[in-house]
Amino acid sequence: MFESAELGHELSKGEFRKVEPRLRADLLDAQYALSQDGRFPVIVLISGVRGAGKGETVNLLNEWMDPRHIFTSAFDKPTDEERERPPMWRFWRALPPKGKIGMLFGSWYTGPIIDRVFKRSRPADLVRSIDEINRFEKMLADDGALILKFWFHLSKKRQKKRLKALADDPETSWKITKRDWDFFKLYDRFYAVSEEALRETSTAWAPWIVVEGSDPEYRAVTVGRTLLEAMHRRLAAPPERRAKKSDAAPLVRPVDNLQIIDTLDLSVSLARDKYRAALRKRQRELALLTRHPKFNRHTVVAVFEGMDAAGKGGAIRRITAALDARLYRVIPIAAPSDEERVQPYLWRFWRHVPRAGRFTMYDRSWYGRVLVERVEGFAQEADWMRAYAEINDFEEQLARHGAVVIKYWLQISKSEQHKRFKLREKTRHKQFKITPEDWRNREKWNAYQVAAADMIERTGTAQAPWVMVESNDKYWARVKVLDSLVEALEARLGGRS
Amino acid sequence: MFESAELGHELSKGEFRKVEPRLRADLLDAQYALSQDGRFPVIVLISGVRGAGKGETVNLLNEWMDPRHIFTSAFDKPTDEERERPPMWRFWRALPPKGKIGMLFGSWYTGPIIDRVFKRSRPADLVRSIDEINRFEKMLADDGALILKFWFHLSKKRQKKRLKALADDPETSWKITKRDWDFFKLYDRFYAVSEEALRETSTAWAPWIVVEGSDPEYRAVTVGRTLLEAMHRRLAAPPERRAKKSDAAPLVRPVDNLQIIDTLDLSVSLARDKYRAALRKRQRELALLTRHPKFNRHTVVAVFEGMDAAGKGGAIRRITAALDARLYRVIPIAAPSDEERVQPYLWRFWRHVPRAGRFTMYDRSWYGRVLVERVEGFAQEADWMRAYAEINDFEEQLARHGAVVIKYWLQISKSEQHKRFKLREKTRHKQFKITPEDWRNREKWNAYQVAAADMIERTGTAQAPWVMVESNDKYWARVKVLDSLVEALEARLGGRS
Repeated sequence: MFESAELGHELSKGEFRKVEPRLRADLLDAQYALSQDGRFPVIVLISGVRGAGKGETVNLLNEWMDPRHIFTSAFDKPTDEERERPPMWRFWRALPPKGKIGMLFGSWYTGPIIDRVFKRSRPADLVRSIDEINRFEKMLADDGALILKFWFHLSKKRQKKRLKALADDPETSWKITKRDWDFFKLYDRFYAVSEEALRETSTAWAPWIVVEGSDPEYRAVTVGRTLLEAMHRRLAAPPERRAKKSDAAPLVRPVDNLQIIDTLDLSVSLARDKYRAALRKRQRELALLTRHPKFNRHTVVAVFEGMDAAGKGGAIRRITAALDARLYRVIPIAAPSDEERVQPYLWRFWRHVPRAGRFTMYDRSWYGRVLVERVEGFAQEADWMRAYAEINDFEEQLARHGAVVIKYWLQISKSEQHKRFKLREKTRHKQFKITPEDWRNREKWNAYQVAAADMIERTGTAQAPWVMVESNDKYWARVKVLDSLVEALEARLGGRS
Repeated sequence: MFESAELGHELSKGEFRKVEPRLRADLLDAQYALSQDGRFPVIVLISGVRGAGKGETVNLLNEWMDPRHIFTSAFDKPTDEERERPPMWRFWRALPPKGKIGMLFGSWYTGPIIDRVFKRSRPADLVRSIDEINRFEKMLADDGALILKFWFHLSKKRQKKRLKALADDPETSWKITKRDWDFFKLYDRFYAVSEEALRETSTAWAPWIVVEGSDPEYRAVTVGRTLLEAMHRRLAAPPERRAKKSDAAPLVRPVDNLQIIDTLDLSVSLARDKYRAALRKRQRELALLTRHPKFNRHTVVAVFEGMDAAGKGGAIRRITAALDARLYRVIPIAAPSDEERVQPYLWRFWRHVPRAGRFTMYDRSWYGRVLVERVEGFAQEADWMRAYAEINDFEEQLARHGAVVIKYWLQISKSEQHKRFKLREKTRHKQFKITPEDWRNREKWNAYQVAAADMIERTGTAQAPWVMVESNDKYWARVKVLDSLVEALEARLGGRS
């Protein structure tokens, strides 16, 4: 992949002076057109070897364009707030909103490549990272992002020369540290590992652009022109008018119409005294588990989904009652804010991912994408179809970082829902809970049940299982929710301490 | 202040069982009314001595009300992202939006009180902290926040008994650590310091409510009722219809009509060759200063204000050209997002305060409050009048934490502005920079000049000075901006290293 970036590409200073003013003006124009258009973000990754002009190029692009609309992020050591979340959290934080350019100096590639170069990870780890990156970038691209990945390359000879030149010049010698020479000693290994990474991640939706980094004029104009053309092409594309139909195999109903939700026995119930005893016992166990010596290396991410009036809020409150208020956050999911709307749809859930030793409970969640957005047609088919895999990736990252991810589907019968709606209308302080929209959703009962069945089938994983909760009886439902949470947490912590 | 909280207040369990269901339902109702109303946040501080039931009360309130609409924050050790900002940054982050309840466990009082108890600060430091807190809370209250400050108290005898009881019970012994007993040894000192702090911060807009903490039923009902009544009263208040006129002394024009802006000699200019030499020299100096060994303990907060087309963007870009793109962020200030609109107006500037070793440049800023919002009538007189002092407080906090705060007013003549508008209309890639709004603002030239003169007079401080920049000549202006930035940074770092 690097051969053509070792040819000694260069651009004369005279030529540069000729093309620069026009390129600069065009980039500025494109930047404003992007801002006006507002349909997509531009994500620019700047990676490559030391001494190949990555920093200079970022600085130059910021100089050429309007730095007020560029979000430049460098990823050095993670902060402690970042370390307490899955590794991708810091990159989600840095994503530019639609209409803006994000310049990422260092990226999700840095960790996997460096770890492999220094043998802190095994070959299989790199393969897995590459796979995750491809899926992440696919998600960004499907969401509309224009992704440009620049790799700045230098041949071994040139890198050595360049590092020496920087070290010898009193103006720049501060830039070169022992770490750079340590890296240089591993040039061949770095070459091999990054070649593998680039090859495997040079996808149709996010191809790598390898730039020879020895000549400042050549690399600047190359990056500038590539960026400009990519923006031009995307801005000129017609806004998508036709509905995005998925061309994957369609979701088909079981021919016997039997789905998992139907197999639930909604008649199960618990007597009041048994409920109270079980509740007390489980809440006590849960409280103790939060004081388990290992708990501060873990988190709990609990998702509550179910038809309106299924008892999500009540179940959540039976959990929070057991917890210290400092340890949890309940996130009710309603319409996204305008800052959330200009980001990929998972962004607004990522921002609430708990830090170590904490719980986040989502009252409705990212599953809205494949429930309400699907049923009501707010998301196009191709978008909600891809959401299943994107969600699985998200939850896998949480689980791998130590989260207990548990998802509840609270199932009630249609007649039970009717009873509860009527009761809400009658009860003074429950009236706020019932709106005309609830009645409208009820008319789509069957469509929601189908969507829920697909969701459970496609996102029920070992690391983030769905717990099906028979909820016609609230006592039964609440105890089952607590039972499974306590068990999942115990399993993760390896016993009750 | 604590005498009446040592009387041995209590409420029988029977009485509690009688009042609790109603109180609970009423609180839930009030919480939803608050959410519907959406005009103000409720900020509840939970402070006081150890063992007085602070945690239990927060948990109980979360249980009584809907935890989805409560933002509970505990302030333990600051994270490193917090440590790199002024101490108040973490509290700004935790402010609840309008319509919600924020429960702050530990608060801006904790640090000043504890530091004084352990003699890590001097008496004068506490006085200054108290003064700052009063101004901060006044700002919140003026912005509409309902502030409830609960102090949980125990007499010395009762605290000892309580700590012993907790330590002896195997269920709760984990809660009591050596630190609690170390604290207890300082009871008298803690009593004296916190009494002073409470006395001096029990203001009309944010009074303290001292609660005896020994009886769980008494303290729960006291806090619950107080919160309920405060919410009721505020929700029942009619929305303010009449314009909020300030009743402070009005701002009066100098009787000779001479203001500082008029004394600027706008004819000053710089020849192109001198400009280029000065620019190169200053940019080099600035770049070197960012590598000064002390710089990573400081930040730069630079504000750019001026009439349209005064050259703010151009001046900013002459600074950023000298900097590594990883070190700065340029924040263009436009209309607030909806997440910003439900917070006090300084919130959206606080969130961009740079971490250590970084620059934030604001292209327009919090001064919009006393410029465009004043002139266009977007803010009421009482609101922009108080903004001068609030802004001074904000900038003082930045400066005290190590920021170089520098503010530029770029002054051009009215005819120069006209010339630049016309030029923008003619130049292809500058057309986006000129809108009908610019022409409309121009009609209010004099009102803006008066507002700017007031602003400069009232917010020009030693720690955050205004630099008046004669900007009819762009070369002159850019060099002056760089000159003063380099000098301010040098002064702060104590020389060029």
